[in-house]
Amino acid sequence: MSEISYLPGEPTGPVKTTEIPGPKSKAAAEELHKVFDTRSLNMITDFSKSFGNYIADLDGNVLLDVYAQIASIPVGYNNPNLLKAATSPEMASALVNRPALGNFPQHDWAEILHSGILRVAPKGLHQVFTGTTGSDANELAFKAAFMWKALQRRGGPHVDFTEQEKSSCMDNKSPGSPDMSILSFKKAFHGRLFGSLSTTRSKAIHKLDIPAFPWPQAPFPALKYPLAENVEFNRTEEDRCLAEVEEVLKNNPSPVAAVIIEPIQSEGGDNHATPYFFQRLRQITKDNEILLIVDEVQTGVGATGKFWAHDHWNLPEGMHPDMVTFSKKAQTAGYYYGRDDLRPNLPYRQFNTWMGDPARAILFRAIIEEIERLNLVENTRVVGDYVYNGLAALAQKYPGEIVNLRGQGQGTFIAFDSPRRDEVLMKGKTVGLNIGGSGESAVRLRPMLIFQKHHADIMFDLLEKIFKS
Amino acid sequence: MSEISYLPGEPTGPVKTTEIPGPKSKAAAEELHKVFDTRSLNMITDFSKSFGNYIADLDGNVLLDVYAQIASIPVGYNNPNLLKAATSPEMASALVNRPALGNFPQHDWAEILHSGILRVAPKGLHQVFTGTTGSDANELAFKAAFMWKALQRRGGPHVDFTEQEKSSCMDNKSPGSPDMSILSFKKAFHGRLFGSLSTTRSKAIHKLDIPAFPWPQAPFPALKYPLAENVEFNRTEEDRCLAEVEEVLKNNPSPVAAVIIEPIQSEGGDNHATPYFFQRLRQITKDNEILLIVDEVQTGVGATGKFWAHDHWNLPEGMHPDMVTFSKKAQTAGYYYGRDDLRPNLPYRQFNTWMGDPARAILFRAIIEEIERLNLVENTRVVGDYVYNGLAALAQKYPGEIVNLRGQGQGTFIAFDSPRRDEVLMKGKTVGLNIGGSGESAVRLRPMLIFQKHHADIMFDLLEKIFKS
Repeated sequence: MSEISYLPGEPTGPVKTTEIPGPKSKAAAEELHKVFDTRSLNMITDFSKSFGNYIADLDGNVLLDVYAQIASIPVGYNNPNLLKAATSPEMASALVNRPALGNFPQHDWAEILHSGILRVAPKGLHQVFTGTTGSDANELAFKAAFMWKALQRRGGPHVDFTEQEKSSCMDNKSPGSPDMSILSFKKAFHGRLFGSLSTTRSKAIHKLDIPAFPWPQAPFPALKYPLAENVEFNRTEEDRCLAEVEEVLKNNPSPVAAVIIEPIQSEGGDNHATPYFFQRLRQITKDNEILLIVDEVQTGVGATGKFWAHDHWNLPEGMHPDMVTFSKKAQTAGYYYGRDDLRPNLPYRQFNTWMGDPARAILFRAIIEEIERLNLVENTRVVGDYVYNGLAALAQKYPGEIVNLRGQGQGTFIAFDSPRRDEVLMKGKTVGLNIGGSGESAVRLRPMLIFQKHHADIMFDLLEKIFKS
Repeated sequence: MSEISYLPGEPTGPVKTTEIPGPKSKAAAEELHKVFDTRSLNMITDFSKSFGNYIADLDGNVLLDVYAQIASIPVGYNNPNLLKAATSPEMASALVNRPALGNFPQHDWAEILHSGILRVAPKGLHQVFTGTTGSDANELAFKAAFMWKALQRRGGPHVDFTEQEKSSCMDNKSPGSPDMSILSFKKAFHGRLFGSLSTTRSKAIHKLDIPAFPWPQAPFPALKYPLAENVEFNRTEEDRCLAEVEEVLKNNPSPVAAVIIEPIQSEGGDNHATPYFFQRLRQITKDNEILLIVDEVQTGVGATGKFWAHDHWNLPEGMHPDMVTFSKKAQTAGYYYGRDDLRPNLPYRQFNTWMGDPARAILFRAIIEEIERLNLVENTRVVGDYVYNGLAALAQKYPGEIVNLRGQGQGTFIAFDSPRRDEVLMKGKTVGLNIGGSGESAVRLRPMLIFQKHHADIMFDLLEKIFKS
């Protein structure tokens, strides 16, 4: 091993003590299942024995973790600097004195925002509305978009609501509860609350039996990989999808207030598009006087070799997204925005009791400090290239196992299709690799930002073991 | 002062140092407003100087707080026992190793649930699905209800989804995205996400310009107070509302999966109904084979003189609610349930990344321990009677100021109407009382569970000052 781990004392490799699940894990799962549905259980986790990139189960098995709590652990289990922040008097106060931030913000809330959430604000977006989860963040952004669009249609912020609007909304009826919509893309995932689920198009199991708004969708480009070798085909495909977006915006019976899109469709199977596609999409939303919401819940906070994945798009000045949502690795959530007219024209229109959680905002600040201290965005860029090339070599060696390798130049945000995906994920456990899937057949890598070349080497060995088995 | 404060060292009364807002608060608000909408600002809070029932602002003003972060602080600012829990190694781990609870629950999650959230589970409901906020909790309960109802209509858990269901839901269309609904009550408040907002009927400003599901409503009884003196009128009014519920269930074009109701409508203006009403409602939902969801987000966790407000209903064995949602004073959120068939028939149907937050669940456990140690539910019962009687006396003395006093026998969950409500709330600040409103004209008391008789005496004096001014 030629590298020094970012976190001294990190395990040097997986440890296998029992079959997985082992006897203790089985007993614990059975106990938990009596009061808490465990049918999606992956592993009963012992966090006291997990460290850095390694996750431990209750039987003492230790696995290299390239899934990281569904892409949400940024800088390692039990990261010492995060533990310092977590045991600070400031954190204790935030935990026991949780404010209703809209009414009674703590006096240092501006400072917490400036030194944390806003320190990494995407270009052009210097304001934030804080929330609790990715679904919540997206729905808050939708609400801001609807209020903005309704105000445009009404003729400006100083035009009063009509009596009819005020009374009809109490009956959930138009015009007060307007027939407007959010346009999303096929295979998108934006959350599972009622509004966000209406924009989610990942899998039927996520949506069946839940009432949905009749909001429209457009196709997301189905590109060929590697992108660099399929430029012409991909351009045609992206143009086809953009034309369908324009078609929907023109003809959809319900006026569209905003388009929401992921920079890389994650739950939907790691589907990429090129900067050209996103630049054109931004132009189309401008031309149609609607908003562009970029959902960076899974792609944000450094994994793609940029802090925000949409930094790869090279949008010109003044063309940045209207709102960018975040959660997961931020360990808190919300939406960034820039233009003042995205603040609703009256107070209490965008409001709820807690409006986020300063405890989690303080933790995000510590995460940002750790990212800066270790230069982790650059790390994901460099290690990402190393991982991509290593997997490309493995794909040569095991052509039936790694198909459609993708994510080149996108940090460690890498995936491939596997003809026997579920089996590969299962076998990962037995060889000491905790790895996740997405979409129908994708194996997705979502390592933490502290994933280094020597971890990648171990991962390659473990993948070979799986492929040989 | 004849009593000893539950929290030694608590201030003995309000302290006034400046006008409110004072110069420091004004400057801080201006600074914060640049990046965070502060138009609903009540007070820039200095939690380091807040303690027990007293809240401090940035200029050193200290106010008796009977609003408690919109009814969400249970056992006092900087409660020493909560601070102990907040600085424990267990809490630090929960903060930095936040699990995806559906996939990788921590090994002691069952233990945290049993000793915390489930220790206070409502009668008959021994299971929980955890979430993050009250809105989230209600929407999760709605989803469980829709999946349950769809399964009943389909013929049971073993009947497969049809191909048409699986494909139509991807287009947000029936039958996969079914036309089903949740019945709520006029003036109800159940949250502000898209599904929960469709059941909220509090104020137009909460709903305007946001698309809503065409879900039905029924009238909530408009009772006369005191309840004991208006039995006959109130019974007639409750019967009228129950008849309308039955009417909606029979005739609503969209099948109703569940009814959601608050034990006391809180944001809607503190509207009460009698146990008779709720008992009948429970029977009606049984007769119609739909679910009853009780929203205890604001009423739960001890404030009404019972741990859960619906404990006042004396529901017979087997007639408990199907789901009870909680948040606010629990500092975490979720829904309790009992019947196994409320677990969806397949994994990943009710699922999201975090499914709550163990850090906040650990805090709720410490809150429960503090409630038990100080016998705080009994405290709210006894102090509640004292407050009610004191306000009744004030109402005699200032008949134009306190109208429709209500909440007798409901702990400190007390409110009255005020012909000059907004002015009373504003003046509260100047005399040292932080007090909130709800509905059109209600002043609502939402003191913490550690509110004692000597605090009530101070509050009476401050109210008199306001009434005299």
